[in-house]
Amino acid sequence: METVKVGIVGYGNLGKGVELAIKQNPDMELVAIFTRRQPDQMASGDAKFEHISATEQYIGKIDVMILCGGSATDLPEQTPFMASMFNTVDSFDTHAKIPEFYDKVNALAEQSDKLSVISTGWDPGLFSLNRLLGQAILPEGKDFTFWGKGVSQGHSDAIRRVPGVKAGVQYTVPVQSVIERIRNGETPELETREKHLRQCYIVAEEGADRDAIAETIVSMPNYFADYDTTVTFITEDELKSEHSGMPHGGFVIRSGVTGSGTKQIIDFGLKLESNPEFTASVLVAYARAAKRMSKEGQTGARTVFDVPLSYLSPKSAEELRRELL
Amino acid sequence: METVKVGIVGYGNLGKGVELAIKQNPDMELVAIFTRRQPDQMASGDAKFEHISATEQYIGKIDVMILCGGSATDLPEQTPFMASMFNTVDSFDTHAKIPEFYDKVNALAEQSDKLSVISTGWDPGLFSLNRLLGQAILPEGKDFTFWGKGVSQGHSDAIRRVPGVKAGVQYTVPVQSVIERIRNGETPELETREKHLRQCYIVAEEGADRDAIAETIVSMPNYFADYDTTVTFITEDELKSEHSGMPHGGFVIRSGVTGSGTKQIIDFGLKLESNPEFTASVLVAYARAAKRMSKEGQTGARTVFDVPLSYLSPKSAEELRRELL
Repeated sequence: METVKVGIVGYGNLGKGVELAIKQNPDMELVAIFTRRQPDQMASGDAKFEHISATEQYIGKIDVMILCGGSATDLPEQTPFMASMFNTVDSFDTHAKIPEFYDKVNALAEQSDKLSVISTGWDPGLFSLNRLLGQAILPEGKDFTFWGKGVSQGHSDAIRRVPGVKAGVQYTVPVQSVIERIRNGETPELETREKHLRQCYIVAEEGADRDAIAETIVSMPNYFADYDTTVTFITEDELKSEHSGMPHGGFVIRSGVTGSGTKQIIDFGLKLESNPEFTASVLVAYARAAKRMSKEGQTGARTVFDVPLSYLSPKSAEELRRELL
Repeated sequence: METVKVGIVGYGNLGKGVELAIKQNPDMELVAIFTRRQPDQMASGDAKFEHISATEQYIGKIDVMILCGGSATDLPEQTPFMASMFNTVDSFDTHAKIPEFYDKVNALAEQSDKLSVISTGWDPGLFSLNRLLGQAILPEGKDFTFWGKGVSQGHSDAIRRVPGVKAGVQYTVPVQSVIERIRNGETPELETREKHLRQCYIVAEEGADRDAIAETIVSMPNYFADYDTTVTFITEDELKSEHSGMPHGGFVIRSGVTGSGTKQIIDFGLKLESNPEFTASVLVAYARAAKRMSKEGQTGARTVFDVPLSYLSPKSAEELRRELL
């Protein structure tokens, strides 16, 4: 079998997820993991670690670099740099900056005759595909996107900055009753606070004023004041045993009408026990597509909107038509 | 605005749905409806009717023919015939015969330099896309497809053949409790009868033996014997007022694992008040794609697996990246 030779750039939760996902796909081969840390101090099974400065030596040996850095500071540098040498896949998710990011990566990848799939994962990614599908098929209608139940990193950071808080985690939780109303055909105008709840689990410092902590959190502007927020105090052991996972998910629902007011609902949902492992699995599928598009001679940047879904599958077009159509 | 000039072949429920869907899409223009009936006895607003034998006169005037015949006898003839003159879109849904149908249409469309999107709609169609997506992203996992609540034409026909039955309709209903188990992470082995119920609504002829009718239905091999089947007797008025719609829908759920057993669930569902109107809306979106692929110089047959989703949307690539990614 011809394999897709993959390099991983960055070895945080997402990079580790990609390493695991590659093992689930017999047509994928991990060549090396590139890190900013000391490669000789890293170990994971039989994976080869290299310093990130060594990527150039792998030109011609890697089909696709999967870029696992963060969107704030890593990917705006890494994707353009890597796109000048390799086909790439990334999960750049700063929605407002995607057009600018696309233009930059597109120009560089065209110059280097490489192919870059940007901003994949689940949002942007699978959720985006479903927003497009919903609007294209039901032009008269309304979109609803819900996130969670999942950990919000920004909100967790915010509660950890509150005086007296030793540790904590915040879950964004979609309001199930609102989702049921939409599934039953309603198309409500929803305020922010009506769509999601915020649940905070806090380990307080010894002797801290818990009422004051709770009050500071629920009244925090931008982060919590506009939401129904619950604050629950737990022990450090409980935090570790019950809140160390990284679940996430959500729903994209298109509620539309056809004909003379006939209701039609398209409903896509994810329920993920591990957000980074799932995102990694999406990246790996798009790496397969990136190699294939590149082999066809395509160059430049692409998003999930541009990639036929058949390119994500290791199966042939004949097999797909016979088994899955 | 450059429009997509559309012809409709066949004016049953699906063809009427396409006519309505075109009105919801400002970039779509209905040129003519082709029918086997007398065109001068047909009327619908300002739509132009033509006899199906007149299609040849429309070469060059129609971008895409949307073929709205049935899969049993119409489309196996119509799609190859039309593909030799026009770009086409159809909803051929005899799963077992798709490979053979594809080969035939592909050869003819390549010969005529036209583009044919075959077997679109929702199953095959959107459900197929989600089966592919689930398997490509979560290679270790299990698929579940449920249909309904919706009218099954074959089963409705079967109950109407039972002696003493004047009229009737059969709904296939997914077992909600099983779906909830799957959404909660179980991956049960399911017998046919555990996934769907069958609900029959019967208008009995006067003086007919209702017990005998019910017994004949629930014990009917292939159709009902393997299912939990309910038989409810109603009046002719009730049949007309409460059972004349054509609702349908269903779910495609992929329950998989990543890493070391982390559960991940992808869940796609449709809840349709009108099956033919929704299928029609999918066909119209794929007609937009067919024209675009044809303009690019692509020829031959395509399925939903081959079409980038951006081609379904009237929005530009820039707009899609900015608004929907």
